[in-house]
Amino acid sequence: MQGKLPLISVNGVIGQQISPLDRGFAYGDGVFETCRIDNGQIPLWPLHRQRLLASCDRLFIPLQETLLEQYVQLLLAQMPAQELVAATLKIIVTRGEGGRGYRLPDKVQPTLCIGIFPAAHYPEHYASRGVTVRLCQQRLGCNPALAGLKHLNRLEHILARAEWCDEAIAEGLLLDGNDHLIEATISNLFIVKNATLLTPDLSEAGVAGVMRRFILESLVPQLGLRAGIKKLTLDDLLSADEVFLSNSVFGIWPVAELLGDSPRNFFHGEITRKLQALL
Amino acid sequence: MQGKLPLISVNGVIGQQISPLDRGFAYGDGVFETCRIDNGQIPLWPLHRQRLLASCDRLFIPLQETLLEQYVQLLLAQMPAQELVAATLKIIVTRGEGGRGYRLPDKVQPTLCIGIFPAAHYPEHYASRGVTVRLCQQRLGCNPALAGLKHLNRLEHILARAEWCDEAIAEGLLLDGNDHLIEATISNLFIVKNATLLTPDLSEAGVAGVMRRFILESLVPQLGLRAGIKKLTLDDLLSADEVFLSNSVFGIWPVAELLGDSPRNFFHGEITRKLQALL
Repeated sequence: MQGKLPLISVNGVIGQQISPLDRGFAYGDGVFETCRIDNGQIPLWPLHRQRLLASCDRLFIPLQETLLEQYVQLLLAQMPAQELVAATLKIIVTRGEGGRGYRLPDKVQPTLCIGIFPAAHYPEHYASRGVTVRLCQQRLGCNPALAGLKHLNRLEHILARAEWCDEAIAEGLLLDGNDHLIEATISNLFIVKNATLLTPDLSEAGVAGVMRRFILESLVPQLGLRAGIKKLTLDDLLSADEVFLSNSVFGIWPVAELLGDSPRNFFHGEITRKLQALL
Repeated sequence: MQGKLPLISVNGVIGQQISPLDRGFAYGDGVFETCRIDNGQIPLWPLHRQRLLASCDRLFIPLQETLLEQYVQLLLAQMPAQELVAATLKIIVTRGEGGRGYRLPDKVQPTLCIGIFPAAHYPEHYASRGVTVRLCQQRLGCNPALAGLKHLNRLEHILARAEWCDEAIAEGLLLDGNDHLIEATISNLFIVKNATLLTPDLSEAGVAGVMRRFILESLVPQLGLRAGIKKLTLDDLLSADEVFLSNSVFGIWPVAELLGDSPRNFFHGEITRKLQALL
């Protein structure tokens, strides 16, 4: 087919639009994934697929794994290889149409929307020299039932991202309503303190990123690091030895500078460097 | 045109679908209204319109009032009068397409989706004898920036509504994460205690209903009632003399029975009756 991006399929049909009755549109009733495409492959695909299926389970959306695989492959097959050297894959799964108001439909037919987008381009020095971040005023509401999910209710993150337009600021950090540090707008947060890697507990708020999981479950053991998931506060951040952000599209960005009321600079430390090198 | 419901227009075009790139679909980035159509008219339309415009303002969505009026009238004009004796009007406004990720587009072109649906049919005795309600386990997260808005991030309400399917239960009451009683899944809550009408403070969570506002600002003064907005708890509910629910589609339903760990029956009291009669 053509090489024009984005290329989007809805339930396997390229160019299909979304019904105004879709519960994704009406209520944000669904989940999504954003994956990196690298030379035609999707790094960490098993983790993305697993999170997507687990998230659908938690929201009672019956996503068929075989259909997911089939539609992803179908779409990738439409693109010339040179377009897939570097690109972004986005998958949205909604509860489809039906139901009276918020009530779940008796029989759910999910909408599976898959798109290939141009690769996100970030300055090379974000990874090599580190990024500048700010603390967002927007807080994340606490809700254990939704915490961890990459669901389609993203107004908090949108309002947080709307707080700045200075291109020199790469990310914004988010606290929840109880003053716990949770994540950044599109990435997870890690700090290193006393040679221990810590990342916020996401049982009340936040998105449990695929790269966060890969770091904790795969990279940390390989490097023999001490690591843990913990409730963290701004004080923990300010007293950290190293700080970095992770997501599955950009990988790892060291945080070089925190702006705001308690500004601080951070070194591009040894543990962050080791994780980046291994990644 | 035809008399087939639902009849839906998107930016004034009947039968138009939604782009998969629409931020309403991708992030729940928008707001909505559900209004009653009664003999071709929309009761409380000025309040609905005002809330929609104010909500868009709070989310930085530039909705044009004249366009809203024009598209609503255009759609109503398509329907034969007999279809508009009793129906439901739903309006969804999203931030449209564009922007990189959560980031706001430089120039926002909102999507304005308007639909006429069949009227919701509720048993007549809901209003005359009262309804049975339950307390939902699902809590509402607290977020002052979104509180009060009828926005498109509705997963909490969907999960709450998924907790029961017993048709004898009309509504589910919702607490926030701090044990404050906020609302029901599709309606606002009022209690009467010592001849004073009270409704929950919605500065942290909940949807500030148009009917709630009409009751407080128009019916309460006409009846010379004492009334207030206050943080309420489950104890306030359990010790109430009267309890009722309000929304702009069904009006007022007295609560006759609360199920659960602390079951209670309530009388269909004088203040509830007076408000219903005036409405």
